[in-house]
Amino acid sequence: MVSPATPAVNERESFLAVFDAITADVVAELKTYNVPQDGIDHVKNMLNYTVPGGKLNRGLTVPSALRSLLKRDLTKEELFKSQVLGWCIELLQAFFLISDDIMDGSITRRGQPCWYKQPTIGMIAINDAFICEGAIYRLLKKHFRSTAYYPELLELFHEVTYQTELGQMMDLLTAPEDNVDLSKFSIEKHAYIVEYKTAYYSFYLPIALAMHMANVTSDAAFQQAKAVLLPLGEYFQVQDDYLDCYGSPEVIGKIGTDIEDNKCGWLIVQALSRANAEQRKLLDDNYGQKSPENVKVVKSIYEELQIADIYHAYEEASYERISELIEQIDETLIPREMFVVFMNRIYKRKV
Amino acid sequence: MVSPATPAVNERESFLAVFDAITADVVAELKTYNVPQDGIDHVKNMLNYTVPGGKLNRGLTVPSALRSLLKRDLTKEELFKSQVLGWCIELLQAFFLISDDIMDGSITRRGQPCWYKQPTIGMIAINDAFICEGAIYRLLKKHFRSTAYYPELLELFHEVTYQTELGQMMDLLTAPEDNVDLSKFSIEKHAYIVEYKTAYYSFYLPIALAMHMANVTSDAAFQQAKAVLLPLGEYFQVQDDYLDCYGSPEVIGKIGTDIEDNKCGWLIVQALSRANAEQRKLLDDNYGQKSPENVKVVKSIYEELQIADIYHAYEEASYERISELIEQIDETLIPREMFVVFMNRIYKRKV
Repeated sequence: MVSPATPAVNERESFLAVFDAITADVVAELKTYNVPQDGIDHVKNMLNYTVPGGKLNRGLTVPSALRSLLKRDLTKEELFKSQVLGWCIELLQAFFLISDDIMDGSITRRGQPCWYKQPTIGMIAINDAFICEGAIYRLLKKHFRSTAYYPELLELFHEVTYQTELGQMMDLLTAPEDNVDLSKFSIEKHAYIVEYKTAYYSFYLPIALAMHMANVTSDAAFQQAKAVLLPLGEYFQVQDDYLDCYGSPEVIGKIGTDIEDNKCGWLIVQALSRANAEQRKLLDDNYGQKSPENVKVVKSIYEELQIADIYHAYEEASYERISELIEQIDETLIPREMFVVFMNRIYKRKV
Repeated sequence: MVSPATPAVNERESFLAVFDAITADVVAELKTYNVPQDGIDHVKNMLNYTVPGGKLNRGLTVPSALRSLLKRDLTKEELFKSQVLGWCIELLQAFFLISDDIMDGSITRRGQPCWYKQPTIGMIAINDAFICEGAIYRLLKKHFRSTAYYPELLELFHEVTYQTELGQMMDLLTAPEDNVDLSKFSIEKHAYIVEYKTAYYSFYLPIALAMHMANVTSDAAFQQAKAVLLPLGEYFQVQDDYLDCYGSPEVIGKIGTDIEDNKCGWLIVQALSRANAEQRKLLDDNYGQKSPENVKVVKSIYEELQIADIYHAYEEASYERISELIEQIDETLIPREMFVVFMNRIYKRKV
């Protein structure tokens, strides 16, 4: 799973403080809905368990992008409101991750048991995911109802949510865990899944939200931002796929299992597009299997096909291409600097 | 599960024809999202399987309420748009039912296997439920973006969705299938669950949507409608609970299993509020158990406590109370007749 960049510690602390405030909001509002105390406690625990434990890069991008757009420090109110929008992205992410973990049968997430795996939880987690999504619209109504761009915020969240769901659908249809069929994989499908399942909500959404707050209304500005951010998101996810196989576990903090999990990742679709009949047969027989021997065979074919070198060439080419896309941005609409900072944080990352 | 009323056959046919049109809309739009063909086929099958198979009473209520509000026949466009809103409720219902069935571990729905029980489906059904919800906002955007009441439609769907999720949460927390604990049940919790899980989306939502289409803007009008429709929804659900135990299976089309399923229904909360220590012990030991012997014990205590008679008294009192609430409606705001028709369809129903 992708996450844009790693910001300064104090920004993170200030952002986390806002989480407490908005959780208090959502919980206080439950009383106006007459929710009994055990329900209130459940929502409070659930939000604390599922929402704030990640790297928070998506959410933190909103205030930092707003600063780039306004080219000055934010007022207290601007900072707070951009942080609320940041938490709306993190709530959307919680909605996706809680349910993805159930759909994937995952065991752990962020170093602790998945929410649905908690002893008293189970399948109520599906409804908890819905409540995370519902909380987004409670917060938008409370804090943005009176802004001119409120309908645009609602539509943006609807649109990006739907896009992510379509990406998740294609991921599940292409790579079901219990039925390995590499003929379903392709470079095009991989690109679709990455763009829809990850790039829209992780890369485009934070910037687009900041643009609304900065009162950007030109459709061209949003199109130009998207034209850079979707390729940037793809590049980031491809890095993620590469690091899953070739990164050092001590640095990335986990042992990659994409091969075992039958993931439609960048490495396998590249290998499939280059494999001869014999190599293809070995990939068919060994991909998506749990045993280390199978994984070893797949990795040896990556080796034969020099997939790591192809990755490094892709990385260089992506950097060039995205730099060119940034050059094409009309600075009277949005500052190029916002994207340059973003890209340089990502390029050749090790973690 | 509750459903308001049974309308004429031709209305149903005209409504079903609109389903084909809006499914075509949603599917055509998927192409603009570059969804590969297997994804398009999946969405098409899923919508056809999960959305139109019910009684459709919620959806059909929108055009019929709009007629009451306008006090005339609808134009072709009014009819179509009110039917689109009706299908948005049915999509919301599909979103809830697909996921409720997974959470409850149900096997069948509307006389066929639950969607997630279909051989090639499984847990992708969770994401399919999300797509049903997402389709609501695609349809609202396409058909209502240019209306003055578009933001109100969005907020109404957000609000009612959230209320229903809170109701589902309290239902799951109060009556988990694997842990019978009748001390969690109460008349108040039952009322909460009925109001939030069922009455808002099944009774208030269809009428409120029609009111927006009729350009009703007075907050008082919506409050008055809610004041009648929530008690009417409660009354209907209590009937449902009664019929689950005392209705004839040949007439209601299913064999009730609320006792076996540890449901926090009206009969058990009434029994608990009246049981002596000995009866309470028997209820604790026998409620929520699958065997016919256990069910028989529970039913014999209902007998001793004369729960059926209490129900009939409740039915009379509800009719009186709701009639009075209808009398209090300010006819300069909304027509009482809309509610009278609704109530008379429901009162003393057998099915």
